Amino acid sequence: MTDFRFELLGTDGQARTGLIHTPRGDIRTPAFMPVGTAGTVKAMLPQSVRETGADVILGNTYHLMLRPGAERVARLGGLHRFSGWERPILTDSGGYQVMSLSKLRKITEEGVRFRSHVDGSEQFLSPERAMEVQRLLGSDIQMVLDECPALPADEARIEKSWELSLRWARRSKQAFGEQPGHACFGIVQGGTYPKLRRRSLEDLMEIGFDGYAVGGLAVGESQSEMFDTLDAVAPHMPANRPRYLMGVGKPSDIIGAVLRGIDMFDCVLPTRSGRNGQAFTPEGALNLRNARFADDSGPIDPACSCPACRQFSRAYLHHVVKAGEIIAAMLLTWHNLFFYQRIMAGLRQAISSGQLQSWVARFHQGVVD
Amino acid sequence: MTDFRFELLGTDGQARTGLIHTPRGDIRTPAFMPVGTAGTVKAMLPQSVRETGADVILGNTYHLMLRPGAERVARLGGLHRFSGWERPILTDSGGYQVMSLSKLRKITEEGVRFRSHVDGSEQFLSPERAMEVQRLLGSDIQMVLDECPALPADEARIEKSWELSLRWARRSKQAFGEQPGHACFGIVQGGTYPKLRRRSLEDLMEIGFDGYAVGGLAVGESQSEMFDTLDAVAPHMPANRPRYLMGVGKPSDIIGAVLRGIDMFDCVLPTRSGRNGQAFTPEGALNLRNARFADDSGPIDPACSCPACRQFSRAYLHHVVKAGEIIAAMLLTWHNLFFYQRIMAGLRQAISSGQLQSWVARFHQGVVD
Repeated sequence: MTDFRFELLGTDGQARTGLIHTPRGDIRTPAFMPVGTAGTVKAMLPQSVRETGADVILGNTYHLMLRPGAERVARLGGLHRFSGWERPILTDSGGYQVMSLSKLRKITEEGVRFRSHVDGSEQFLSPERAMEVQRLLGSDIQMVLDECPALPADEARIEKSWELSLRWARRSKQAFGEQPGHACFGIVQGGTYPKLRRRSLEDLMEIGFDGYAVGGLAVGESQSEMFDTLDAVAPHMPANRPRYLMGVGKPSDIIGAVLRGIDMFDCVLPTRSGRNGQAFTPEGALNLRNARFADDSGPIDPACSCPACRQFSRAYLHHVVKAGEIIAAMLLTWHNLFFYQRIMAGLRQAISSGQLQSWVARFHQGVVD
Repeated sequence: MTDFRFELLGTDGQARTGLIHTPRGDIRTPAFMPVGTAGTVKAMLPQSVRETGADVILGNTYHLMLRPGAERVARLGGLHRFSGWERPILTDSGGYQVMSLSKLRKITEEGVRFRSHVDGSEQFLSPERAMEVQRLLGSDIQMVLDECPALPADEARIEKSWELSLRWARRSKQAFGEQPGHACFGIVQGGTYPKLRRRSLEDLMEIGFDGYAVGGLAVGESQSEMFDTLDAVAPHMPANRPRYLMGVGKPSDIIGAVLRGIDMFDCVLPTRSGRNGQAFTPEGALNLRNARFADDSGPIDPACSCPACRQFSRAYLHHVVKAGEIIAAMLLTWHNLFFYQRIMAGLRQAISSGQLQSWVARFHQGVVD
């Protein structure tokens, strides 16, 4: 059996390109992971997600533990078989959604008690349970449970939060145990405080993880604060482990983070925007709901070869968005995921060939190649 | 250019199998036409509709004239190019939806005045406008405008309605004019009154149409009333023209109508049911919302080769139906349309080989082959 292993193929400045080898297939990095919240990348069939160029998707522990339930997914053969996606899956730990979606949260040393947003039932998530759920799902890359305070927060609040998260990270790693071919990632916290971020990373490296994520960003801070934080932490991250920036982001966020040495990303933006009638293009996002597209016979993006751009006009997409037709969500989600994967492929190629700076300059002039 | 032409390939009792030749491709009959209301078969991409086995889809004049507008669709190259479906399209005349969806209807000799359900604007539909809209859409098979009274209605009401519909049918045919490769169908009315139905048919045959539809059924009468009406009218319909039963129906309705000599069908049932979590099977419809499917690892139908049955369990479909995920509508619509096309293919094969009675007997025992 292939072990979980990161292979660095090339660098350009701080930027890296490589392969994460897993028993379920390789992940080309920099990688964008479409979000498959509840066992489906919304409005997409699994083979269509693959056709956009995705090597890995993200599943949400919080959603899946509440419905259909981790033990049920395990009985049904695991999340890959259940959802029809046979390639790698990364799962988060559920902590972030507990904070953002559930009610009546009570955080103790042991874990977090909350009410399900689905049926109001009382639920409990501890580091041990978060890892058990991810193991039951059959997740290839499992994330430690951490506490993620909302920004802005003062340094004392962030530090206290980190101390709890560190103890939870140790318990998570312990609970993960030995799972050949599977990986456990730690999550660097510390808000926008460089000193805390570096301490957080050092603490995690002492425990030892298969990869390191940067968490607690994309929660309200500016892009430059995000980049400053990455500048403070990324150079210190182990070169032989994948680096994952959680929940990010806009194309320019991803590109800036790749320039700073990040390898993996996930974000609901392309899928959620697609369901809201927005289409990403090299020149920026189009709102297809806008009346100016009603008679526009051209495609979203003439340079794009996705099904939405090959077969349909902006006028058609405008019509189906306005009419609330499901095909609008299907086509725009496909287009947006395809656009994100075009960016990732362009970044990988540019890093391999040492052309990253000029690629990024062209991107900022509205060219994705 | 291929002309519009019906070729009878075989019969078994009253049942017929044949080909409708059109410049956009042949339609194998008996044929089921998925409903593509507003320029999309809901929750399906056009190539997926084709993959279910459909040769022709139906478009709704009423919906398309209100949004995005017939003149706009014409400017954008016609409904085929606009919607990405390059094979034949049949359009209804809009009359039925005016009655069922719009407000403030006023029917005069000239036509029907109504308010759009989309934006409340005042609209007018006459036989001439109905045909103009269908021509602007580029419809391959265009239907005359008729008035369709709700059942039950007494004979006098139906007769009066027919007299108006007949005058409208003449004006529709006149407005259709000469459109090589395109067809204009008349619509037999007359409620459940055999004498009125036959008179209606005779009147239409005197005008002369490329095909004949039976309208005004599937509006509340029982299946046996529907079949009695078909028994009264179908044997008198011209053998060398396609026969279309509008808005029908359940699989057993379609099979009973094929046994009585009908060639073409359309119905929202497979698509609408799919969006509501229902899946057709040879043994009847399953409601995937039902908790008994939560742990069912089998497919909807082991004999079905659609994507929903090949890749997903009932448990998964139950989960995504309950979670309100778009993939539920996508997969169940695909399955249901595929099931309908399996039935049509089975009927065509059974008629060709003179095995229709035994095929129907097997169907009623829960076997579709």
